[in-house]
Amino acid sequence: MTELRTLKVALLGCGNVGAQVARILIDDAESLAARTGARLELTGIAVRTIDAPRDVELPRELFTTDAETLVKDADLVIELMGGIEPARSLILSAIQNGASVVTGNKALLAQDGPTLYEAADKAGVQLSYEAAVAGAIPILRPIRDSLSGDRITRVLGIVNGTTNFILDQMDTTGAQFADALAEAQRLGYAEADPTADVGGLDAAAKATILASLSFHTRFDLENVHCEGITEVSAADIAAAKDAGFVIKLLAIAEKLVAADGSEGVSVRVHPTLLPREHPLAAVHGAFNAVFVEAENAGELMFYGQGAGGTPTASAVLGDLVSAARRIVLGGPAQIETTNGQVPALPIDAVNTSYYIGLDVADQPGVLAKIAQLFAEHGVSIEIMRQTIHRDADSNVESAELRIVTHRATEAALAATVQAVKGLDVINSVTSVLRVEGV
Amino acid sequence: MTELRTLKVALLGCGNVGAQVARILIDDAESLAARTGARLELTGIAVRTIDAPRDVELPRELFTTDAETLVKDADLVIELMGGIEPARSLILSAIQNGASVVTGNKALLAQDGPTLYEAADKAGVQLSYEAAVAGAIPILRPIRDSLSGDRITRVLGIVNGTTNFILDQMDTTGAQFADALAEAQRLGYAEADPTADVGGLDAAAKATILASLSFHTRFDLENVHCEGITEVSAADIAAAKDAGFVIKLLAIAEKLVAADGSEGVSVRVHPTLLPREHPLAAVHGAFNAVFVEAENAGELMFYGQGAGGTPTASAVLGDLVSAARRIVLGGPAQIETTNGQVPALPIDAVNTSYYIGLDVADQPGVLAKIAQLFAEHGVSIEIMRQTIHRDADSNVESAELRIVTHRATEAALAATVQAVKGLDVINSVTSVLRVEGV
Repeated sequence: MTELRTLKVALLGCGNVGAQVARILIDDAESLAARTGARLELTGIAVRTIDAPRDVELPRELFTTDAETLVKDADLVIELMGGIEPARSLILSAIQNGASVVTGNKALLAQDGPTLYEAADKAGVQLSYEAAVAGAIPILRPIRDSLSGDRITRVLGIVNGTTNFILDQMDTTGAQFADALAEAQRLGYAEADPTADVGGLDAAAKATILASLSFHTRFDLENVHCEGITEVSAADIAAAKDAGFVIKLLAIAEKLVAADGSEGVSVRVHPTLLPREHPLAAVHGAFNAVFVEAENAGELMFYGQGAGGTPTASAVLGDLVSAARRIVLGGPAQIETTNGQVPALPIDAVNTSYYIGLDVADQPGVLAKIAQLFAEHGVSIEIMRQTIHRDADSNVESAELRIVTHRATEAALAATVQAVKGLDVINSVTSVLRVEGV
Repeated sequence: MTELRTLKVALLGCGNVGAQVARILIDDAESLAARTGARLELTGIAVRTIDAPRDVELPRELFTTDAETLVKDADLVIELMGGIEPARSLILSAIQNGASVVTGNKALLAQDGPTLYEAADKAGVQLSYEAAVAGAIPILRPIRDSLSGDRITRVLGIVNGTTNFILDQMDTTGAQFADALAEAQRLGYAEADPTADVGGLDAAAKATILASLSFHTRFDLENVHCEGITEVSAADIAAAKDAGFVIKLLAIAEKLVAADGSEGVSVRVHPTLLPREHPLAAVHGAFNAVFVEAENAGELMFYGQGAGGTPTASAVLGDLVSAARRIVLGGPAQIETTNGQVPALPIDAVNTSYYIGLDVADQPGVLAKIAQLFAEHGVSIEIMRQTIHRDADSNVESAELRIVTHRATEAALAATVQAVKGLDVINSVTSVLRVEGV
């Protein structure tokens, strides 16, 4: 048996993912060495506070507050601090020192990915970030490598476990958003300040990364139209359920032809109605899944745990072993292919289906009036369903109208909704939501 | 723009997958070149009969019956002829000539994979076979690369679309096996001779490949216990449904501790009861899915089309682009890691749960008698449910007993069933099926 070479691994950050990565590097050292062809020696863990409480007991001598010195001496750097700075400077410094970098920092990649990719490319080192999207689920590598001979046309992802848990709760129990959020917080699925999750920003960062890889084009956070789930009501969920749909917060990246005939990619995050028989509709609780449509492969789905220390550590270590093997065996770094260069489309250019809920007067001719208005705006109706309610006390009848349209532009839809509101037979527009998978 | 290098691609076989691969190589030449960094020139297609009818119109001058000459001059060889010979000799000849090989030949890999892996390893060329398991679904690369820092504990795969279509039909419509098979044949989901599919052999070959990659150990077809679906009756399906289960043909590879305390891997294919809420239960029609459990990642699922010319071509081209990039950029070939070396366990050593259906006399004390017998054989009962039927004409009551056990060995279960049959209160044992996911 030849003696194995040792590679020095520096870990930046020791939160719930970092602590598990450290534990596995120590506990599974033998089997990781066998699979890598090199010993992966954890040389240090950079943290802000050495004596902070942690999930895992780790040797105290590994901890340091001097991240810069730690990075200088490493062959491989794992960045799990999150945030923009000092993470970015440390990654750039590691790259310049010739270290390969593994990161799970979606916010940094979405905001300033190209700077990092270019630095890694120039230095000939590997920059890997499977953990940044959908935790444990292997999704970036399949998109980049397995589908490299195909053309992806659309990606629909449930990439935020907090919002999926909340929407699933609302769907199952009929709870309002605020109550489902409180329950998610109680169970540890939502943070005390849930803004980044429920506002859709976390999903938007992941959408940026998915879109960039899927369409071989650099997108950034500014290209992403983002709506969170705070406006989704129990009534929306109930109406969707009644019509055979479920509401999910989706990260969407899809190739589209805009109204002016130009091709582009729409990257967006918003609450979306999905038919209950769609594979993504069966993704419950805090699980994640990414649904990919490709010209030749057809429909694919990747499902698993999107968060949590140990699952996300699995993705980090997969990247680490690959990067280490490359150091041992040689070979080129992964290339970030940007040969696609399709423009990002603004949300107004997007073509999609819509669900519109209307509270209307129960009079003859109302349906005809509304249908006429949709037609005048060039929005074609796929399904129109009217339900009559009678108030037992007042004996007054009211009608609820649910409309699912064929694909229409945001602009046409907005104009239609505006016009509908002006009709005297309309009491209120109860919801306007986008629909996928129909 | 620098001039791109040209790589010569030889295609062996032009069935429904081969024809689509040829079409895409020709139609998408530009975008494949952009992603590969080299032109992929299809130099010829080796077939048995040049003028055979094909799905796709292809230039006649590409066809040849002289596969050996075609292979000699290629940088990359795609083998889609199927069967053992001449596929094996041609692949070995390609490898010896220094060509990288992409194949979808599960039967050959399951029977004689190690010969091919060793030849490729020795020659330093790439041998890729994503298309051999679960068609378009990227599963082998995620198992090999993405999960390289984790430890897989179990793989459950729906890897044969024909049997999944048949079982799904039986479940949905209540049809008997023969009728569902006839329907599958009518719709083109089953071949005129369906033996390899319904007998489980096709799934067994895929189980061998999945097990080898998942456990870093060489397994072959002889290590696989294989039962098909021909004995699954409409009554089995109905009883399973009634108890909240669905029956799927699963390819299973799992790490187990045998009764004697030794660790090993069980590789097997058999009809299996799964709870209806299990993610694999929602895989309908001819779709495939592979469910992976790993120590750190937890539960993952990969879902998509398992067969069909165009979807499978996507997997072939993904492998081709990767192999071609490696020729252009240099670097080591994928390694087949066999550092696991866990022994294959015989089916008798397997621990699993069982579902047992019994037709019993409706007498007091029957349940106690049966429960006692199970206990004596060390088989623990998890669920026991009795349903009483009364024949309207004869007024005779009979009882149906459904038992789900905790994990027990095949040997203990077989002994228990044998003993149960000897009880005077037992009219018949109506079904014995294995259960997963409980």
